[in-house]
Amino acid sequence: MRVAVVQTDPIFGEVQSNVQAALALMESVKADLFVLPELFNTGYNFVDAEEVRKLGEGASGFTFQAAKEFAGDRSCYVVYGFVEKSDRIYNSAVLVGSEGLVGLYRKVHLYDRENLLFTPGNLGFPVFDLPFGKVGMMVCFDWIYPESARSLALKGAQLIAHPSNLVLPYCPDAMVTRCLENRVFSATANRIGRENRGGYDLRYIGNSEIVSPSGRILSRLGTDEPGIALEELDLVEAINKRINENNDLLTQRRINQYSF
Amino acid sequence: MRVAVVQTDPIFGEVQSNVQAALALMESVKADLFVLPELFNTGYNFVDAEEVRKLGEGASGFTFQAAKEFAGDRSCYVVYGFVEKSDRIYNSAVLVGSEGLVGLYRKVHLYDRENLLFTPGNLGFPVFDLPFGKVGMMVCFDWIYPESARSLALKGAQLIAHPSNLVLPYCPDAMVTRCLENRVFSATANRIGRENRGGYDLRYIGNSEIVSPSGRILSRLGTDEPGIALEELDLVEAINKRINENNDLLTQRRINQYSF
Repeated sequence: MRVAVVQTDPIFGEVQSNVQAALALMESVKADLFVLPELFNTGYNFVDAEEVRKLGEGASGFTFQAAKEFAGDRSCYVVYGFVEKSDRIYNSAVLVGSEGLVGLYRKVHLYDRENLLFTPGNLGFPVFDLPFGKVGMMVCFDWIYPESARSLALKGAQLIAHPSNLVLPYCPDAMVTRCLENRVFSATANRIGRENRGGYDLRYIGNSEIVSPSGRILSRLGTDEPGIALEELDLVEAINKRINENNDLLTQRRINQYSF
Repeated sequence: MRVAVVQTDPIFGEVQSNVQAALALMESVKADLFVLPELFNTGYNFVDAEEVRKLGEGASGFTFQAAKEFAGDRSCYVVYGFVEKSDRIYNSAVLVGSEGLVGLYRKVHLYDRENLLFTPGNLGFPVFDLPFGKVGMMVCFDWIYPESARSLALKGAQLIAHPSNLVLPYCPDAMVTRCLENRVFSATANRIGRENRGGYDLRYIGNSEIVSPSGRILSRLGTDEPGIALEELDLVEAINKRINENNDLLTQRRINQYSF
């Protein structure tokens, strides 16, 4: 299968043009799965809860319709992050196909001021069975909790789609560890640019990347430009958790020796 | 406190001279805690179980006595890896002080042919309260299981002493992730050299290192020479798990969202 990570430079609040800009990048390649950044349609640096609510969408809003249409035209899947306006407000990611909504994930580990603006996710780490393999989602800061990728791997995810808005420098290298320890592929789509709003000045690091189960960085984009990286992956590689004749990484976890 | 990682080049089976060589390196610096490699006294590449048994020691063998004497002379602590001959044969590490045995850890995750030669550890991941802070141990391949360092951090370890005999290239960078995700210090002592025995040809990668809770590599030794790296650490840094006003890494784990 072919996976693409889409690195965008959204303008805060300009949902329509942010979606158009992402679609324009996506039209340049042929992929089975496109992964877009966290909150790619709205921007990230909300000043208050009111602003979050105003830019939230239901699962059938403008962004969803655009993604569904793209997925239908191209017979592909799209993962993107958005403000989900439901019973509460979540920092969510959806997996969209030509048939519409395939999967929903609500960010479990909220970063910094997100704790003041969003409700923590309550759907666990679901995994979805697509024609080319099993795909799970996590969002940005979930990377720092090994429990996130581990949960997905234990549920059979072969590829982790990872919409992000990274501001700290650590994640791109840490995803190598996540892939190694779980023998999974990862596709981290990050944004670039700067948002200086309401006294909070954030710079996003780019470096969107695709990593293999053996920890090889197959693609990594730069820090300053929008772009798209495409890799042809054989997701079957991520089914076998053996790293030698005597070690199977997942079955040899020793639960009764751990302190949690 | 001052921690030293000791990178050695043991000769297989030459326990006395391997211990002497390590002590000679250790005499060159003043530290509160010395961390030596896995199986530093015997070498690693055992051909069969008989050879392991022959080179095993009880907790009061030659190596232990030498370490205890060194710790007594210098008022310090020593962590080292050895073949523990007890009811079974374990790949173990001890923490030795002037008072003698302070802590014992039996390697929980065995690598490759170790699965044929050793019994998996059965003591969990204990943590020991020393005058300068709380120290836990893990051995070599335990690094690939995030559950190891996580267990130690949840039990309050501020510094992870990590005797190793690394042959794969991934661990030195992965320890940065382990320190970041748990906000702990780590001291990985690895060996160098090559052991080609009984058809198994192993090369050890060196790169012994000391890493901070913010993922900074404070020291990293080379790949080809024995040596010692010394760092002055403030272990109090590892008590606070906050990385910003709204995130405390350990208390914000969301157990009921995980799949294990």
